[in-house]
Amino acid sequence: MNRNEVKMKRMRIEQALRAEQGSDSVVVCGWVRTRRDSKEFSFLELNDGSCLKNIQAIVDKGVPGYELLERVGTGAAVRVTGALVESPGKGQKWEVKASELTVIGEAAPEFPLQKKRHSDEFLRTIAHLRPRTNKYGAMFRIRSELSFAVHHYFRDRGFFHVHSPILTGSDCEGAGEMFRVSTLDFDRMPKKEGRTDFGEDFFGKEASLTVSGQLSAENMACALGSVYTFGPTFRAENSNTPKHVAEFWMIEPEMAFADLTDNMNLAEDCIKYLIRHMREKCADDLELFGRFVDKTLFETLDNIEKNEFVRLPYGEAVEILAGAKQKFEFPVSFGVDLQTEHERYLTEVHFKCPVIVYDYPKGIKAFYMRMNDDGRTVAAMDVLVPRIGELIGGSQREERKEMLLARIEEQGLNREDYWWYLDLRRFGSVPHSGFGMGFERLLMLLTGVSNIRDVIPFPRTPNHLEF
Amino acid sequence: MNRNEVKMKRMRIEQALRAEQGSDSVVVCGWVRTRRDSKEFSFLELNDGSCLKNIQAIVDKGVPGYELLERVGTGAAVRVTGALVESPGKGQKWEVKASELTVIGEAAPEFPLQKKRHSDEFLRTIAHLRPRTNKYGAMFRIRSELSFAVHHYFRDRGFFHVHSPILTGSDCEGAGEMFRVSTLDFDRMPKKEGRTDFGEDFFGKEASLTVSGQLSAENMACALGSVYTFGPTFRAENSNTPKHVAEFWMIEPEMAFADLTDNMNLAEDCIKYLIRHMREKCADDLELFGRFVDKTLFETLDNIEKNEFVRLPYGEAVEILAGAKQKFEFPVSFGVDLQTEHERYLTEVHFKCPVIVYDYPKGIKAFYMRMNDDGRTVAAMDVLVPRIGELIGGSQREERKEMLLARIEEQGLNREDYWWYLDLRRFGSVPHSGFGMGFERLLMLLTGVSNIRDVIPFPRTPNHLEF
Repeated sequence: MNRNEVKMKRMRIEQALRAEQGSDSVVVCGWVRTRRDSKEFSFLELNDGSCLKNIQAIVDKGVPGYELLERVGTGAAVRVTGALVESPGKGQKWEVKASELTVIGEAAPEFPLQKKRHSDEFLRTIAHLRPRTNKYGAMFRIRSELSFAVHHYFRDRGFFHVHSPILTGSDCEGAGEMFRVSTLDFDRMPKKEGRTDFGEDFFGKEASLTVSGQLSAENMACALGSVYTFGPTFRAENSNTPKHVAEFWMIEPEMAFADLTDNMNLAEDCIKYLIRHMREKCADDLELFGRFVDKTLFETLDNIEKNEFVRLPYGEAVEILAGAKQKFEFPVSFGVDLQTEHERYLTEVHFKCPVIVYDYPKGIKAFYMRMNDDGRTVAAMDVLVPRIGELIGGSQREERKEMLLARIEEQGLNREDYWWYLDLRRFGSVPHSGFGMGFERLLMLLTGVSNIRDVIPFPRTPNHLEF
Repeated sequence: MNRNEVKMKRMRIEQALRAEQGSDSVVVCGWVRTRRDSKEFSFLELNDGSCLKNIQAIVDKGVPGYELLERVGTGAAVRVTGALVESPGKGQKWEVKASELTVIGEAAPEFPLQKKRHSDEFLRTIAHLRPRTNKYGAMFRIRSELSFAVHHYFRDRGFFHVHSPILTGSDCEGAGEMFRVSTLDFDRMPKKEGRTDFGEDFFGKEASLTVSGQLSAENMACALGSVYTFGPTFRAENSNTPKHVAEFWMIEPEMAFADLTDNMNLAEDCIKYLIRHMREKCADDLELFGRFVDKTLFETLDNIEKNEFVRLPYGEAVEILAGAKQKFEFPVSFGVDLQTEHERYLTEVHFKCPVIVYDYPKGIKAFYMRMNDDGRTVAAMDVLVPRIGELIGGSQREERKEMLLARIEEQGLNREDYWWYLDLRRFGSVPHSGFGMGFERLLMLLTGVSNIRDVIPFPRTPNHLEF
């Protein structure tokens, strides 16, 4: 291609389909979904990923490039120059009447995405190609828009986005197994008194991948007021479930001058906003999931959007569960952590709407959560929603230095590791609160997809590190 | 604090300062920057991080809480209830006349950020507190807004945001040293034939932290059309320079149906947009850098915003450099990679405006860049800007399968590792192009800050993994 050539710019198919008027000369590029031939012309259904819908191109016999059509099968890339004209066919306003067809790239005959339904399991093995299907194209457009909506929501409310570090020297909340990061030569580990000498490593000490950006976010909130992180986090749990991946994205707002009620208000408002935004901006793509993946999808979303979230102390939640007719695999009593079966019972069966459970027993929660006056519960909260269970976990943080120190010791942590975290409580300490929301869980809620591997482009799970 | 108490919500100081009218009752919370006492009243300068400016609060003798003022030094957190009234003082429209003062958290007397100038080196040792200074508060607000601007720019132009994986099994472009990620027991490494047995590791094989999301982005662009990644990337280079950190954020757009010219156009437009957006949205914060950090800052930004970028083939760049009067540390000839001194000469001295150098010799560029017809250069481009040198590196990707295979073999790479990348060239291959822009470099350009450690909240460098 000559760089100085004046080229007709391509029009995205999404733009073409919502054009207000026809045009004598447009260029669309895309991948062929189907080709149908009749004697005097051929139909091509083209998709360029800009939206769910295809555009139809009609190539008449005799049009330059018509003779190339036999090489154009499903998956081939073509450029069609022509006129954007009203379509006599159903379900589309516009189509392209070709004046020229160019084959950009053929598809080898073994192209796996021929016109038929494929299982999600199969599509995971070709994660590099699955975004070319309707379902995964829609999924990743939704993922993109949801990500934008998150930024938009927080910025609009005066929150600053913070890039919390991925590499960390602290096992910040003891939350799950961590991946270790190193530049040591694994075949010849340097040793000191029989153990690995991390003094030789890149950072001169043990390094891991973060499990949460919270502690960094607290540093920043105690300077900028309201902040949020939105980045990748990691868990090295060796579990093969539809809910776990080793690498996932998390949204963590943190607010200075805010207590647990402010935190619950933010969580509820945020979830409702995101659902509303997405239903407005991604209607076509979501529609696909409502039709083919979960017929009750929009009912669930309506429920969350329209109901006030129930706010329920943990103690009362336990009473409800203990009195429930339903048999649970794990018995419940005060002091025990809730399992997904309990969470789903509360939100799906008992209240039939989202529930925020708060004031959990201190024994099952992290050291940094604020001790309540009863001395046995902490100002923690979990937001439970139908189909997912826990979508958000958060707390008011312990801002009183002596109380925090007591909790650090109680949990056998090393106070030297937290010198900077304790500093926040020495210098102008303020009540502050925040939460974490799993971005993939939110996507599962929004699309009805039940396996987390199918809402992230290239999922990382035990023994899976392809692409 | 009673959760059911109806509280007066705090007003962010940024909101208060741009109020259109006064108010009888406002609540502001913030950290005290200074206190000045006179006989009958005290002035407090409060900052809550929402903007650069402080708000002034006047606390008259006799106001509830007045007696607490002796405990209120620099760094303490307070809540002031009162009236928002026009300020008779200079430089501010509004101030708060307190009707009540509450001390939220005192600052221990050793609070390090007393009213005086601190060196950047010192402030790095208290990275958890430095965002409470004017300079770093401004920096991290700018960082947040710039991050939003990036998303806004690409979304507006039909690009989809892709979360490319951080954990990777492929040394994607051989670009620099990689960090290894593992869950093996470092003290007792499993061995197989004398070497580490990665079959026992979490992923069943060697895993690293990504150095670029490009290859993933190509997968997605060849389905969705235009995409971009914006996430953390890692280099384990053991270099202590003002330009290197181990963890940094990178923006990588990738466009299907686009050649090198489209790529250059996007890069130029994107940089100009981001500068324009930031000057509009963060005027106060940028002003600080123009005054105290780099007096030529706005001149540099004007230069970039207003000039058309020069587009210069690498061959011509070499001729210019070879003919320059300036002595370079590294001599230049065709086939040699340009150093920062050369890049800065071209953009600062010779052209005095941004320069895009393109068509680099294949020997110094990565395997995936598209071979030009001359057989000795590839369709690569670097964008050079004053003060920074290379801000962007990009290329048109090799979309021809046989050419790509030849390059893979030529560079001694293992073609089996790239089966999925090669698949893109088997099934509807299209010309596509993209680039990478270092987010921190962009921030350095925008603020005039010369050390990368000072544009990222918690920098990671050799032997530094604190906070």
